[in-house]
Amino acid sequence: METNPCNKLLNVGFSIPSKVSRAIKPDDTIVNVNGVLTGGPEIIIIAGPCAVESQEQLFDTARAVKVSGAMILRGGAFKPRSSPYSFQGMGEEGLILLSSIRAETGLPIVTEVMDPRQVELVGKYADMLQIGSRNMQNYPLLKEVGMTRKPILLKRGMMATIEEFLLAAEYILNQGNDQVILCERGIRTFETSTRNTLDLSAVPMLKRLSHLPVIVDPSHGTGLRWMVPAMAKAAVAVGADGLIMEVHYKPEAALCDGHQSLDLDEFETLMTDLRKIALAVGREIS
Amino acid sequence: METNPCNKLLNVGFSIPSKVSRAIKPDDTIVNVNGVLTGGPEIIIIAGPCAVESQEQLFDTARAVKVSGAMILRGGAFKPRSSPYSFQGMGEEGLILLSSIRAETGLPIVTEVMDPRQVELVGKYADMLQIGSRNMQNYPLLKEVGMTRKPILLKRGMMATIEEFLLAAEYILNQGNDQVILCERGIRTFETSTRNTLDLSAVPMLKRLSHLPVIVDPSHGTGLRWMVPAMAKAAVAVGADGLIMEVHYKPEAALCDGHQSLDLDEFETLMTDLRKIALAVGREIS
Amino acid sequence: METNPCNKLLNVGFSIPSKVSRAIKPDDTIVNVNGVLTGGPEIIIIAGPCAVESQEQLFDTARAVKVSGAMILRGGAFKPRSSPYSFQGMGEEGLILLSSIRAETGLPIVTEVMDPRQVELVGKYADMLQIGSRNMQNYPLLKEVGMTRKPILLKRGMMATIEEFLLAAEYILNQGNDQVILCERGIRTFETSTRNTLDLSAVPMLKRLSHLPVIVDPSHGTGLRWMVPAMAKAAVAVGADGLIMEVHYKPEAALCDGHQSLDLDEFETLMTDLRKIALAVGREIS
Amino acid sequence: METNPCNKLLNVGFSIPSKVSRAIKPDDTIVNVNGVLTGGPEIIIIAGPCAVESQEQLFDTARAVKVSGAMILRGGAFKPRSSPYSFQGMGEEGLILLSSIRAETGLPIVTEVMDPRQVELVGKYADMLQIGSRNMQNYPLLKEVGMTRKPILLKRGMMATIEEFLLAAEYILNQGNDQVILCERGIRTFETSTRNTLDLSAVPMLKRLSHLPVIVDPSHGTGLRWMVPAMAKAAVAVGADGLIMEVHYKPEAALCDGHQSLDLDEFETLMTDLRKIALAVGREIS
Repeated sequence: METNPCNKLLNVGFSIPSKVSRAIKPDDTIVNVNGVLTGGPEIIIIAGPCAVESQEQLFDTARAVKVSGAMILRGGAFKPRSSPYSFQGMGEEGLILLSSIRAETGLPIVTEVMDPRQVELVGKYADMLQIGSRNMQNYPLLKEVGMTRKPILLKRGMMATIEEFLLAAEYILNQGNDQVILCERGIRTFETSTRNTLDLSAVPMLKRLSHLPVIVDPSHGTGLRWMVPAMAKAAVAVGADGLIMEVHYKPEAALCDGHQSLDLDEFETLMTDLRKIALAVGREIS
Repeated sequence: METNPCNKLLNVGFSIPSKVSRAIKPDDTIVNVNGVLTGGPEIIIIAGPCAVESQEQLFDTARAVKVSGAMILRGGAFKPRSSPYSFQGMGEEGLILLSSIRAETGLPIVTEVMDPRQVELVGKYADMLQIGSRNMQNYPLLKEVGMTRKPILLKRGMMATIEEFLLAAEYILNQGNDQVILCERGIRTFETSTRNTLDLSAVPMLKRLSHLPVIVDPSHGTGLRWMVPAMAKAAVAVGADGLIMEVHYKPEAALCDGHQSLDLDEFETLMTDLRKIALAVGREIS
Repeated sequence: METNPCNKLLNVGFSIPSKVSRAIKPDDTIVNVNGVLTGGPEIIIIAGPCAVESQEQLFDTARAVKVSGAMILRGGAFKPRSSPYSFQGMGEEGLILLSSIRAETGLPIVTEVMDPRQVELVGKYADMLQIGSRNMQNYPLLKEVGMTRKPILLKRGMMATIEEFLLAAEYILNQGNDQVILCERGIRTFETSTRNTLDLSAVPMLKRLSHLPVIVDPSHGTGLRWMVPAMAKAAVAVGADGLIMEVHYKPEAALCDGHQSLDLDEFETLMTDLRKIALAVGREIS
Repeated sequence: METNPCNKLLNVGFSIPSKVSRAIKPDDTIVNVNGVLTGGPEIIIIAGPCAVESQEQLFDTARAVKVSGAMILRGGAFKPRSSPYSFQGMGEEGLILLSSIRAETGLPIVTEVMDPRQVELVGKYADMLQIGSRNMQNYPLLKEVGMTRKPILLKRGMMATIEEFLLAAEYILNQGNDQVILCERGIRTFETSTRNTLDLSAVPMLKRLSHLPVIVDPSHGTGLRWMVPAMAKAAVAVGADGLIMEVHYKPEAALCDGHQSLDLDEFETLMTDLRKIALAVGREIS
């Protein structure tokens, strides 16, 4: 499948590439993140802080989200920040903390990799590698993670069309790695009351065009802590295979994205609500 | 309250006008559409064809959506079309058909009014007047419907911010008419795989800022018949007070928007699914 | 030509309607605004305040812009404002002031009409009727001005595609009035440092697709007084047939849009600069 | 200057970082590209093919653009393509061809680098390193080129605000390299008749906020060969310090972006027109 068939699939008005296409592989792909299966009947909940800031912050948050039902732990060690003067993450020290708390809790780890030269390092610690929005079209990075056999969490770029998003995933699959989870995380529009506009229609669209699992990030999608629960519930109702959310044991003190992080109680309450929605759409959250 | 307090309400980063503001009136407004109460515990379903095309088309569709559980009938008699050469609606003849089927089914009628000179005419037949997206900032029209005592269904403009949307509603309330339902129907973005981008985050935002009921139009919001059910379910989960959807007895033959209209069976199936989601969020659909 | 040929003209990827199309009428249309010819070799400068506020404000501004070389006077009497509590214009009193200063200066008048019921009234005073951005798809209004024989200044909607813009003009031409000037005035994008994003590529695109004259409004297009001269020069270089600019004798005291209005000295300086650019592109400004 | 002063500079409504700020360094920065000075009185013209395809294609194009007045040669050896199945560039072989034709013509070379691991290799051949739109927020890459002493051509991301664009440049300056040229190349909007919307207002905005030179890319900004001349002229009129344009000796046969490439005759004609505009705004093109 070395060429792009440019097939006008499913009447959506654009061509999609081949390896990610449901026309080529009708069955859902199940991505196995160290034992947690994404893309099957269960809805996967990924939670944790924006950035790893300290042992206490990470460990207290991780223990709490596990109790509430999170299945995978998120936490950034290398942070892509708009300003060079913002906190850039703890680096390898953060990765070590992440692997320590995995050993204790059993939660698989997802963390971002920004640099093709760090894929090997991050891969030593992480169970899943995240490609952030700003790097969705960073092709050398996509090729590098495509050469690993790690699951990849690929976030949609802020102004990426559905077609470009699928083509970015194609770069990874084309290297032989089909363990890719797509993540809708909000697009940039004229509206300024929310940080981004969470495009939930991307979920049914991506599920129709591709066999890859699709999850939603309501934290970046809204930028508003109080709005995360409503959008998380909508994401489950619309058919997402999972959610990734920022949770912090003390959001007011967070070094990064505290304004959009749930606290531990809010997360626990939300998990209860999400289980009801999941049942209503014939899915489940353990 | 003759002046705009420009209060920075609720930390959303913009001022909102006074009469629509929840800071001025904390309790939810209930809009009474000829006996159908919108904004209370029940989720309201408005269904019907894009445009009234014939007696058979309207009556067969209306009877079927009533059986499936629709509470209000929609149908356009005056149609705002991008091209002057597209079907412009049946005019008063369409209004007469709408009132005939109301007499038979008991379903209240909502239909669009585009011209301040036609507000009186349309008001003779309709139970609720719709202001379409293209007219959200048509101030003479907003003032004219504000002087009636009819409920108003105000659709968000394709390019309107949340603030502008609320200010448009303020024009109506400022004339003494507080029976306004806000409708999110998709905004215009760079994404082209859907007709518009349905901004479901507008629902919790509007509910937080204003006491007015908020409903969602997944038909115009997606432009894709197959995607309507998923987005309708998400709208209920996110907290909408109702839905307005295009349903047609023969979508393939519709003169307007057939590609985004559900057929009668799809609508019936969807109603069953929506009832489950409503229960999961503590609401109900009768 | 009662039907839309939907001809895929000029390889721009969309259909355009017929009466506005250059494929139907290859020669440029010249719009005659009470003796001022737009669409020919000369570049037309329209200047004046956002709103008519007082006799002194209007007359002092009008006399000065005439001396500097403006050919048409702008000034709003009926103002479409986002908030019902903002200054809404002086109404007919403003129109009377406009016609008084026309009698003195000889400058033709352009002013906005927002309501189909006021077309006759405004037409009694104005030489050209302006349809504002918010009303670009107000079809009853377009039809009403189409039935006059006045020149019409049609502003592009903030989120109107080129195709929708041409279709709106088609509504006017379809009523028998071909004296239409198209005006690019900025579109809404994610960028917030300017009020709108002035889409200068609309000028060559519209000129290629249509025979109608095209002018540019750098005042609304930028919302920034200091940026108006740069964008005005670019508009002339790109091929616009004219400019419409907000000029106020005391911008700091303006009731409307003072932040984007040039003062009298800035306007005079700009006129000198524009004449040089006009010559460089083979046009002239008198 | 290790911290961000977040100064609300020049009333544009956002903070800008420090090293790129005109508030910190009022005088224009002149970027020296192997003897070609950008940011001074002269307007710099960069021309050449999208991608290096063959010796004949590159050499014939380069010789012709030099005769017409181009001062710097562009040509991609490593190409970031949306699809993994599109032509990805000739790699080092392309770089060798570029340096050969530089030896013959004396034209300095600008070419894109996509991968931090290739900065050293590309730097061996190129006089200026280009960071493409998709990599504007690729921070490891920005840091890597910031550690060189090569001039950097930084293109604005398709979804980047002016503030984010300046913050990206700050990453480079913060590594000690102040030889940065900013390039506006079109942003993504709802409009589909052009490939992107060329935001010419970015030029005066960036010049006001920053001391860095600003150039414009009308080829990517429009995606339409016939529209490039009009937008190039507008860019000079608006105050750009230069232009970068795609020129191909046989656009119909180009492997990449032929639809937006000028042919050799069109480029020569355009250069003549640009010189007139440059004079009209008090600049010059040699």
